[in-house]
Amino acid sequence: MASTSSLSLSNSLLARSVSHHAPASHSSDHRPGLCLSAASPLPTFSGLKSASSSSPAQIPIAALRRRFLQRQIRAAAIETLAPAETSLVDNSVNTIRFLAVDAVENANSGHPGLPMGCAPMGHVLYDEFIKFNPKNPYWFNRDRFVLSAGHGCMLQYALLHLAGYDSCKLEDLKSFRQWGSKTPGHPENFETPGVEVTTGPLGQGIANAVGLALAEKHLAARFNKPDCEIVDHYTYCILGDGCQMEGVAHEACSLAGHWGLGKLIALYDDNHISIDGDTEIAFTEDVSKRFEALGWHVIWVKNGNNGYDEIRAAIKEAKSVKDKPTMIKITTTIGYGSPNKSNSYAVHGSALGAKEVDATRKFLGWPHEPFHVPDDVKKHWSRHIPEGASLESEWNEKFAAYEQKYKEEADVLKSIITGELPAGWEKALPTYAPDSPGDATRVLSQQNINNLADVLPAFVGGSADLASSNLSLMKKFGNFQKNTPEERNIRFGVREHGMGAICNGIARHCPGMIPYCATFFVFTDYMRAAIRISALSQSRVIYVMTHDSIGLGEDGPTHQPIEHLASFRAMPNVLMLRPADGNETSGAYRVAILNKKRPSVLALSRQKVPLIAGTSIEGVEKGGYIVSDNSSDNKPDVILMGTGTELELAVEAAHELRKEGKAVRVVSLVSWELFGEQSAEYKKELGITAQAVIAAAKELC
Amino acid sequence: MASTSSLSLSNSLLARSVSHHAPASHSSDHRPGLCLSAASPLPTFSGLKSASSSSPAQIPIAALRRRFLQRQIRAAAIETLAPAETSLVDNSVNTIRFLAVDAVENANSGHPGLPMGCAPMGHVLYDEFIKFNPKNPYWFNRDRFVLSAGHGCMLQYALLHLAGYDSCKLEDLKSFRQWGSKTPGHPENFETPGVEVTTGPLGQGIANAVGLALAEKHLAARFNKPDCEIVDHYTYCILGDGCQMEGVAHEACSLAGHWGLGKLIALYDDNHISIDGDTEIAFTEDVSKRFEALGWHVIWVKNGNNGYDEIRAAIKEAKSVKDKPTMIKITTTIGYGSPNKSNSYAVHGSALGAKEVDATRKFLGWPHEPFHVPDDVKKHWSRHIPEGASLESEWNEKFAAYEQKYKEEADVLKSIITGELPAGWEKALPTYAPDSPGDATRVLSQQNINNLADVLPAFVGGSADLASSNLSLMKKFGNFQKNTPEERNIRFGVREHGMGAICNGIARHCPGMIPYCATFFVFTDYMRAAIRISALSQSRVIYVMTHDSIGLGEDGPTHQPIEHLASFRAMPNVLMLRPADGNETSGAYRVAILNKKRPSVLALSRQKVPLIAGTSIEGVEKGGYIVSDNSSDNKPDVILMGTGTELELAVEAAHELRKEGKAVRVVSLVSWELFGEQSAEYKKELGITAQAVIAAAKELC
Repeated sequence: MASTSSLSLSNSLLARSVSHHAPASHSSDHRPGLCLSAASPLPTFSGLKSASSSSPAQIPIAALRRRFLQRQIRAAAIETLAPAETSLVDNSVNTIRFLAVDAVENANSGHPGLPMGCAPMGHVLYDEFIKFNPKNPYWFNRDRFVLSAGHGCMLQYALLHLAGYDSCKLEDLKSFRQWGSKTPGHPENFETPGVEVTTGPLGQGIANAVGLALAEKHLAARFNKPDCEIVDHYTYCILGDGCQMEGVAHEACSLAGHWGLGKLIALYDDNHISIDGDTEIAFTEDVSKRFEALGWHVIWVKNGNNGYDEIRAAIKEAKSVKDKPTMIKITTTIGYGSPNKSNSYAVHGSALGAKEVDATRKFLGWPHEPFHVPDDVKKHWSRHIPEGASLESEWNEKFAAYEQKYKEEADVLKSIITGELPAGWEKALPTYAPDSPGDATRVLSQQNINNLADVLPAFVGGSADLASSNLSLMKKFGNFQKNTPEERNIRFGVREHGMGAICNGIARHCPGMIPYCATFFVFTDYMRAAIRISALSQSRVIYVMTHDSIGLGEDGPTHQPIEHLASFRAMPNVLMLRPADGNETSGAYRVAILNKKRPSVLALSRQKVPLIAGTSIEGVEKGGYIVSDNSSDNKPDVILMGTGTELELAVEAAHELRKEGKAVRVVSLVSWELFGEQSAEYKKELGITAQAVIAAAKELC
Repeated sequence: MASTSSLSLSNSLLARSVSHHAPASHSSDHRPGLCLSAASPLPTFSGLKSASSSSPAQIPIAALRRRFLQRQIRAAAIETLAPAETSLVDNSVNTIRFLAVDAVENANSGHPGLPMGCAPMGHVLYDEFIKFNPKNPYWFNRDRFVLSAGHGCMLQYALLHLAGYDSCKLEDLKSFRQWGSKTPGHPENFETPGVEVTTGPLGQGIANAVGLALAEKHLAARFNKPDCEIVDHYTYCILGDGCQMEGVAHEACSLAGHWGLGKLIALYDDNHISIDGDTEIAFTEDVSKRFEALGWHVIWVKNGNNGYDEIRAAIKEAKSVKDKPTMIKITTTIGYGSPNKSNSYAVHGSALGAKEVDATRKFLGWPHEPFHVPDDVKKHWSRHIPEGASLESEWNEKFAAYEQKYKEEADVLKSIITGELPAGWEKALPTYAPDSPGDATRVLSQQNINNLADVLPAFVGGSADLASSNLSLMKKFGNFQKNTPEERNIRFGVREHGMGAICNGIARHCPGMIPYCATFFVFTDYMRAAIRISALSQSRVIYVMTHDSIGLGEDGPTHQPIEHLASFRAMPNVLMLRPADGNETSGAYRVAILNKKRPSVLALSRQKVPLIAGTSIEGVEKGGYIVSDNSSDNKPDVILMGTGTELELAVEAAHELRKEGKAVRVVSLVSWELFGEQSAEYKKELGITAQAVIAAAKELC
């Protein structure tokens, strides 16, 4: 392994060129959590009344406020807000609200409701709790934050902007949801440094957060020393009612409780509104009681609109509970501050419209032009740049000390942080001579998994309750569990979708974490949404899918994959691999490990297959290659192509044809995607071009 | 509507020829729930000890029993079984156990563990509670039963056999899991009359049961009269630990609690074992508390292995709770009776093996040869044939009275029971003249849904919290809710997978129930497993999938379907329809309604499309058809094909080419599957044959 200096270690992860044209950082002696200034000219709620006469909407603000209060009967009790002097916190919270409102207005598309309601928890989280370095979003020991309710991404972009991230400069907020911008319609980790995972499809974000927290707990257990907690961060997540309804969230949260992920803190935006209106129409379960049943610590903040102290206290309490994940239910008003649209569907997913924006400005006492960040807010947040740099450099010093004392562990951890594969790791892949006995590719997969477990330091994974069928256990390791988090076999239970989404979280924790997960190939149907996020978010998750094809046997059609190969070949940025024997199975694992920016789906047989002469690990890398050929001058009479368990049939057919004197080439097309990426010359060399395929098809018709 | 006599009504549903070579039915004055006979020669547990010396396994039965007891520490407390005289119930329960053991042994494949553990609840349910007519499995007012833990299907087949169903004769049990048998490896409604839904993929069965119970509650609310409860049945479901872990089950159970489905009774086989071993490794949540949080009534039967009275009492209690669904957690021992394998993974999914079968026979005091049904058991169960016939004929009489008093309602209900579509229903489909203004196909879909709501009496459905985007509301109806179950708009919340599986249950309730469900097309990824079951189980569910293609807009790639068209075209028995305009949208609904044995997926646009001259409802039925053509003698220079929102582009391109003097044919290929089913002549007439496509491709290469 290259000897990376520990000081430059996390900088080496700064994969994108992050410009440093940030505003000059002001050191600040303001302490988080204190009201910093009463100098703001902004009116309080009572002050708003006097401004009513100038409302262009021609509705007296007092009347608007009455209406607003009526709207909130079932949401947070705004009555509890004592008329207080406007604080810097209020100012910051309103900045967040209006950055979201203005960006959505500017795009004429997006979701203002969540940012307006969640601005208080967002402010408290990012300004007072989350540990980050805005100038290096990839600093290893940062806290992780996931916006599971991804449609509210302007909340996150506004927070990243205030925090000083270069991905969310003012011009980026102004190009929200525009082609080519860094601020897409839903958070995308591959577009916006500072965004950890790709969310939007509901429920998966909280499952990603479970994966991130799992990775932390695992690495901490392996690398921390009594005198040095070198891995030590929290994972925060904001999720909404929609996420809570999704089964995938439930699956992952059940596991989080089981695993006792004490450093996972979920903030549940309990706003009672989803797209179809009041959640009363479809969602009346007792969420808190359910989470208690799942083994979580549960806190309820009743006034999420203004209860900064309650939010703060809840997060502190959550941090202190070490043996359970915490769910903080925070009751808020969606679209807080919009006199006519708050607490209704209308504010969820559309721009407020100029008139309502104006009314909201008046209501919240925000006389500023669009995208304005008041100086006191700017100044206050600016401390995060130097503080973030300090956090990282302190950690780098800590790492240097750790490295000196625990050289071996430090080297391993470093490789996990950077994602650098250990030299010679590929030698661990089993190879098979042509006279080797064949076996089921799931058995050969097991050999790969176990060999890789020896050389890849953060290769972790498991099955959705089919370990003994998928043959996915790493025999030298025990089970990752609440009290044995240093182990590497993950027992997901019968929760395919949660499994996939958790693996996405693990993969996104840091470049060296390599998760795999297993079930029957047919049950990719349960986890397809997670596989698509793997593909989209460029996450290297290895899907070990056994019981391919009719070889599945007597379990019958409910368990028999048919359309699955075609369906994954059609999914962008997925490698669909169907190895034919031992060498190709090893080749498939090689490809899966080396492709750091895409997931691989391996279709593996339940039944035995022979070792086929001519197969190779290298061949797999090209997607298609010649397994055998008795033609000369690149002029075969016939080219037979096969994949997986059908390659054997192609080989047998070739044998028969050759007996009849034919020149036959057998090609293994183990991955259509990889083959498609080869040069035109290579394809021509193999005789597999569009023209050739068409000509062959014509002969057959 | 044809005037079906009410007496022949349910017989008309006997779609398969059910042979009547059942054993002569004995009328019986034995009442369900009473122990009928103490005359059985079978030993009690204490009697077993004396038989130990003859064990061929050479292990004293006393020692086996000790071992067996040890295995059960975490499972049911076998100690509570007082040494009692062997009852007929014991005999029946052991018959069920051994029919399962013997069938799995015979097939050398299958899952004996669940049937052995669930035989007591299975016996009590089928023999004492479930209302059915074995000679007409399709009798409308029967109780519905779903084995959500489908792998344990030998339990169901054994029960159907004892109950007198012609689908599960002894020879059928002997051909369990064999090619062409009526007893496949997982329950399939289309193979085995008496099986209501297709299960196996875990978690979905309980969601189907929610759909069945929803259909009952809805129809009861609409058709029952104070003096006549013409729709009145329960829905029972057995589910296991695996089902409990799956998110889809959670989604559906949350809705069942919300809807207050009082006649849904779920029996949870709490056996603590799944494929990966003790559920302790992945599933430690408090399930009972969770179900309370979901609004269910929860009962715990601690001794599911022998506690017949407790099981009985629990089901009685469950039936008496009218405002909530009930979950009865029944603690059992998987593989009960197998001395060496019970309470372990070993008994879950493999044949016991001759030696262990023998030991189990000894242990349970079952000296009989394989597939033996003792005479007293036979005699006892035989009453279900006359009783079932009586139940049905009593109901038929009831219906006749109902019909006399409530003619109009009876006619409608009859059409729902038979599935006969009202004459002229198709006239409700909107048609559009070529000069009509265009619109988004989701808007045109809304017109169809609302028109169909007027003419199809049991057209019910809704969206997964996207009603205002999918435009899926039936405006003349309110929401199906706990207290308004007569309404037809279903609010599924953000629960796509649960939605699909619930719709499968609704569709399988009776032939006239026509469920539709809606979300964004991309989110079929969340519900794909349910769509596949729709296809496999031949269930007419209409999937209203809006926001097709890049027309989705700024929501970005997480919300943008790409591979979805291809992936559903690859799924067997699904109609993938991509209408181009208003006429084709109506055509798609026509096809979806008429195809009673397959689901349809409609991909609908968010954005406006023009009405295209030449489109038609009839054209859609053929899958592909000529929209415009200026060629003569069937010799166009070019054939342009398009689907959905791209048909407009093909039309525009044709316009340009024709200006250049070309003879251009434009073909709309709205459904590849339907087109594939057309005659060779028709395809040739259109000029779209494999040869023509290949030739065209060759030109392009």
